[in-house]
Amino acid sequence: MYCGFQRQVPSQPTVQRELERALSQVAGEVVSLTAAGRTDRGVHARGQVISFDLAWRHGEQALLWAINANLPKDIVLLELSVVAPDFHPRFDARRRKYQYYIYNRPIRSPLHRLYSWHIQRPLDLEAMNVAAQTLTGTHDFATFGQPPKGINTVREVFEVLWRRDGELLVFEIEGNAFLYRMVRSIVGSLRAVGQGEWTANEFVDAFKAGDRSRAAATAPPHGLFLVSITYD
Amino acid sequence: MYCGFQRQVPSQPTVQRELERALSQVAGEVVSLTAAGRTDRGVHARGQVISFDLAWRHGEQALLWAINANLPKDIVLLELSVVAPDFHPRFDARRRKYQYYIYNRPIRSPLHRLYSWHIQRPLDLEAMNVAAQTLTGTHDFATFGQPPKGINTVREVFEVLWRRDGELLVFEIEGNAFLYRMVRSIVGSLRAVGQGEWTANEFVDAFKAGDRSRAAATAPPHGLFLVSITYD
Repeated sequence: MYCGFQRQVPSQPTVQRELERALSQVAGEVVSLTAAGRTDRGVHARGQVISFDLAWRHGEQALLWAINANLPKDIVLLELSVVAPDFHPRFDARRRKYQYYIYNRPIRSPLHRLYSWHIQRPLDLEAMNVAAQTLTGTHDFATFGQPPKGINTVREVFEVLWRRDGELLVFEIEGNAFLYRMVRSIVGSLRAVGQGEWTANEFVDAFKAGDRSRAAATAPPHGLFLVSITYD
Repeated sequence: MYCGFQRQVPSQPTVQRELERALSQVAGEVVSLTAAGRTDRGVHARGQVISFDLAWRHGEQALLWAINANLPKDIVLLELSVVAPDFHPRFDARRRKYQYYIYNRPIRSPLHRLYSWHIQRPLDLEAMNVAAQTLTGTHDFATFGQPPKGINTVREVFEVLWRRDGELLVFEIEGNAFLYRMVRSIVGSLRAVGQGEWTANEFVDAFKAGDRSRAAATAPPHGLFLVSITYD
C-alpha cells in the first residue's frame, strides 16, 4: 500500500517515489517526473500519464523494459513514447475517465475486497442512473469537491453511467477535469439515492446548492480507478 | 498469505486455523472442521466446502453472520446449511471444478498479479484445447500427480476447456477427484503445447507414459482457483 501517488516526506512510500527511483536507476542520474493526476492513498490507476526527461540511446522499447525491470511488482509502465519538449501531462489533458466499483452483495468477497466498495443492501441502479445523468454538462461541482480557496469549481462532465458487470456495479464518469475527491464524493451521494435515503430530486438539490457540507459521506478510495486520460 | 488450507504447526497461519478459531469463538468451545480439499499455499478457493459440529440456537443465517464477523477479511463463509451427521465433505464429493488463470500479455499487470500466472509470449489457445481434450475420460494421471505410495492414480475428468476472458486465458477442468498438484501440473504441460515446445502428440505421449518425470514444469499456485464441489 502506497501513501498515494505524490512524493511526500522521504520516508513514505508513494508511487511517484518508486517511479523516480526506477527512472534514476536506469538513467544513472536523478530523474524527476510530472504526472497527470495525483491519486489518493488506496486509489488505483490503470491510465496514469507521466512525463520525464532522460538521456537514452537504445530505443523506446528497451527503455520501457529497463524501467519495468526496476519497478516493484505492483507498479508497471504500460506504454512509452517520445513527446514534444513542452508537453505537460496535467495541463495538456483534455479528458479524464474514472471508474468506481461497488460489490453489492449481502456477504463480502475476499477476492474483490481490495478493488471495490462492499455494500450489503441492494442498490437501485436505475435510480442512481437517473440522478447521475444530471451531472452531465458544465456545472459548479463545489458540493462534491474540496478545492483550495479561490479556485474555480466549475467543471464539465461529458459522460456518466452506472452499469452492472457480474457481481459488481460499475460507475463510469468522464470529464475535462475533476476537483479533489470529486468522483468519490459523487459516488457517495449516488449511493444515498441507490439506498433510498435520498430521492433523485434531493440529490439535485444538494448538487445545485454548491455547498460541500450537503454531500453524503464520501466513498472509500479502494473502489476508484483512474482509467484513462485523453490528449489532443 | 496463508500457508495453505490445512492446519499445520500452531505458529503458521492457515485457512483452517482461522476458520477453527472463528468457529470456536462463536461456539464458546473448541471446534474442529473437516474440509473437502486441501489447497496449497497461494491457491485460491471460491468453492471450498467444510463441515463442523457445534451447538447453536439462533438459526443458520445468524450463525453464518456470527462466523463471518469473527473471520479475517480475506476469508468468508458464503453459505451454510444443516447436513446429515454422516456427511463428509471430502468422501461424499462427486465432482470438483477448478479454474486456472493465465495473464498472457507482454507487459505484466499489477492488478492481476495475485490471481493469475503471467506469461509474456502469446499462447496458442487452439493447440492447448486440442491437447487438453485428450484428458477427458477415465485415465491414469500419474504423469500429472504426486500420490502417496500405493495410492491409485486413476481419476475421471468430465470436462476440460480453455477459453479467453478479456486479457486472461481461463482453463476449466472438472473431475471426480484430483491428485496432489494435478491441475497445476496439467496447466504447466499445456503451456508447453501453447508455446510450441511440445506438439499435442508429445503431450499425449507424456500423459500416457504415467511417469511424473515426463510432465513439464508445474504452474505456480496463485493462478489456481477451487471453484466448486458437487454432491449427490
